[in-house]
Amino acid sequence: MSAPLDHRPVSAAVRPGAAGRGSRGPATRALIVDAAMRLAAREGLEGLSIGGLALETQMSKSGVFAHFGSREELQLSVIREYHARFERDVFAPALTAPRGLPRLRALFEAWMRQVGPAFNAGCLYISGAIEFDDRPSPVRDALEAMVRTWQQTLARTIAQAVAEGHLNPDTDVGQWVFEVHGLALSLHHDARFLRSPDAVHHALAGFARLLRHDATPAGLAAAAGAPTATHLK
Amino acid sequence: MSAPLDHRPVSAAVRPGAAGRGSRGPATRALIVDAAMRLAAREGLEGLSIGGLALETQMSKSGVFAHFGSREELQLSVIREYHARFERDVFAPALTAPRGLPRLRALFEAWMRQVGPAFNAGCLYISGAIEFDDRPSPVRDALEAMVRTWQQTLARTIAQAVAEGHLNPDTDVGQWVFEVHGLALSLHHDARFLRSPDAVHHALAGFARLLRHDATPAGLAAAAGAPTATHLK
Repeated sequence: MSAPLDHRPVSAAVRPGAAGRGSRGPATRALIVDAAMRLAAREGLEGLSIGGLALETQMSKSGVFAHFGSREELQLSVIREYHARFERDVFAPALTAPRGLPRLRALFEAWMRQVGPAFNAGCLYISGAIEFDDRPSPVRDALEAMVRTWQQTLARTIAQAVAEGHLNPDTDVGQWVFEVHGLALSLHHDARFLRSPDAVHHALAGFARLLRHDATPAGLAAAAGAPTATHLK
Repeated sequence: MSAPLDHRPVSAAVRPGAAGRGSRGPATRALIVDAAMRLAAREGLEGLSIGGLALETQMSKSGVFAHFGSREELQLSVIREYHARFERDVFAPALTAPRGLPRLRALFEAWMRQVGPAFNAGCLYISGAIEFDDRPSPVRDALEAMVRTWQQTLARTIAQAVAEGHLNPDTDVGQWVFEVHGLALSLHHDARFLRSPDAVHHALAGFARLLRHDATPAGLAAAAGAPTATHLK
């Protein structure tokens, strides 16, 4: 996301007793989900609990429970909200760029912002994949469906760049998805865990190398070269 | 690791009362660490607890506590043991290959085995980086030191391949470390989370593309081409 998560204490807006009644219900639910997003970013999806969230929002456990009913529903709500924000902040802006390499580049840039050092929380797709790889559950299923949706969007955008004549006809779309995803994962790791100042530069250079391998002259002209670090500030 | 983790119930070997006395001490400690490695692979380092481990080993909490003293010491012991096994299974075999691209390729293959579908547990370096990126602690420090040691070994091996004339003199070693790490992370993600049958193929193709970009004819001859999928079975 380009916009940082809201860090106001939710307690200022959500008071015990405000939950689940009349028109305040959906607004309160949204505020609880917002707090849950922050908790999940810090502690992971498995770190979410009705009790922890009650503490975070200064609501009663039964107040939180009235909105979600179970820890699993809470986790699923966080995943759905993360996906909605990801669509808003990564998919949607990229779709305004022209089809082909310009759109692929816009998608890559928006994605790198989402997982890079400028963003103040880890990526829930990345951390969730690690948390749930060994744990079959509806939460894992939801997470996997969202990740696949995202990878399919990326694949479609790459395939369009081939169709537009911006990437060579023999471009291996699945290989591109795998390698671009690797750049995102390596950026997320080096920026967040190693606090490496070179991580953004390396991610951009990796993308530029993929372009050098498969982009056509027409594609490079359309995309006006590779993205630069200023795009990711 | 090429050898799977031992999945025998540790309870068969470790009985309450066997801990911390005379010559049985170190052996018992090793068995507890082994059980802790399995627990950490399933639940993450943060999922480790003296209580959970007592349950897993059918020892008393005080028996486990006598060996470790704290949850943090338990986590640190698991990290040290993972690193020791990583050195034994990834570093050491690769060092028997000739300096330059043959050694780099051997290192890459051993590493891909460690994070790929044939290996029955997630990589503690990868999952630990996600768990601890936001949590300053001695555990994070230990984990980061191990990851940096591993990345330095990889960087040294790449620099040697440049020195041997196997990679072009203008090869960007840091960029290689970043991109090869990205291939490992993407393989770990796709093999473990998406259960993708193509993940190993994509990791190998990514490495082959890096070689096509920077390897010299002498280097390719020395390494006898790129690694193949049979190396990773």
